[in-house]
Amino acid sequence: MKVINEKIELKTNGCGDLINITPEITQFLQTSMMRKGNLTVFVIGSTAAITSFEYESGLIQDVQNFFEELIPPNKKYHHDETWGDANGFSHLRAALQGPSMTIPFDDAELLLGTWQQIVLAEFDNKPRKRHIIVQIIGE
Amino acid sequence: MKVINEKIELKTNGCGDLINITPEITQFLQTSMMRKGNLTVFVIGSTAAITSFEYESGLIQDVQNFFEELIPPNKKYHHDETWGDANGFSHLRAALQGPSMTIPFDDAELLLGTWQQIVLAEFDNKPRKRHIIVQIIGE
Amino acid sequence: MKVINEKIELKTNGCGDLINITPEITQFLQTSMMRKGNLTVFVIGSTAAITSFEYESGLIQDVQNFFEELIPPNKKYHHDETWGDANGFSHLRAALQGPSMTIPFDDAELLLGTWQQIVLAEFDNKPRKRHIIVQIIGE
Repeated sequence: MKVINEKIELKTNGCGDLINITPEITQFLQTSMMRKGNLTVFVIGSTAAITSFEYESGLIQDVQNFFEELIPPNKKYHHDETWGDANGFSHLRAALQGPSMTIPFDDAELLLGTWQQIVLAEFDNKPRKRHIIVQIIGE
Repeated sequence: MKVINEKIELKTNGCGDLINITPEITQFLQTSMMRKGNLTVFVIGSTAAITSFEYESGLIQDVQNFFEELIPPNKKYHHDETWGDANGFSHLRAALQGPSMTIPFDDAELLLGTWQQIVLAEFDNKPRKRHIIVQIIGE
Repeated sequence: MKVINEKIELKTNGCGDLINITPEITQFLQTSMMRKGNLTVFVIGSTAAITSFEYESGLIQDVQNFFEELIPPNKKYHHDETWGDANGFSHLRAALQGPSMTIPFDDAELLLGTWQQIVLAEFDNKPRKRHIIVQIIGE
């Protein structure tokens, strides 16, 4: 058993940006030469989250619309009075969705469904540079 | 330290089906002979999720009602135009709830509360055959 | 590689109480002398959850308001008919948010963002004594 930490660095376009990070994650797993264990994807920061869904244009729009309605940007949030950066809605969305996802692998392959992709959800209201930890524990 | 992967296979009745998988998971842990570590439950596919709650008929209905209202099936979703299978709402629910849950164990027992059960949430609009990975890492 | 289980015990003030548990968690990690691995935070019980956000008074209020609106306490829930303890809303909130979060660490430090704190969300409608498992796996 051993543990490996990798990092994905990427730039986002701000709120609503949903980025498929499955290819980079799969690449890290292959390079690790590990056969069996789990992989944790964790985004550093409090205005982004990790989710998984079928990454196609219709559903991407649906996910964006869902969050726009559930936690609208144009509502009044107390957080906005604290810092004046108007991203209270971003923090709420990120807290709800969560920064972490753990996925088992076996025979050196992630046990994902055919249409199940790992997605970084950028909820902040401006473009950001993101650091995503990919941690592999196994043998 | 070692890692063990097991698989639960089951048939669901489609949308709204909530299935208590705690007995099978507990069984796997006992068979593994491991004393201390964690157990990750992961459902393969993008229209189901893993959650935990007190599995009794009243709350089962409440969870179903909650998702019916939050992400209603009869709304228009862009995903439905892509494939024509009318399960855009299923994908959204699954993305929100998430496919993975990690639970610590000690003295060979899951550290769950008395009323805290692990539940497969089937969000698809038709019966499905599901594969759930139960991964145990520990010693 | 090894695994360590610790427990945080604390008293909450009931519904809406959001408690920053990052200092205790960081303390456990330092005491463990582990350098690289992951840490799982798991709350025992079905009316509380683990989340993460920037722990400042404005956002604390926003998170409370969000759950008050999304899953209001004064609505009728079937669960309340089962036990008569009027906390159906607490169970629903906990099921949605989830009891578990896994965070990677490296160089003996949790890979959290500057403003990213780990928070216990008490959703029950009365003060509770809570047990939170902090499990560290690594080397």
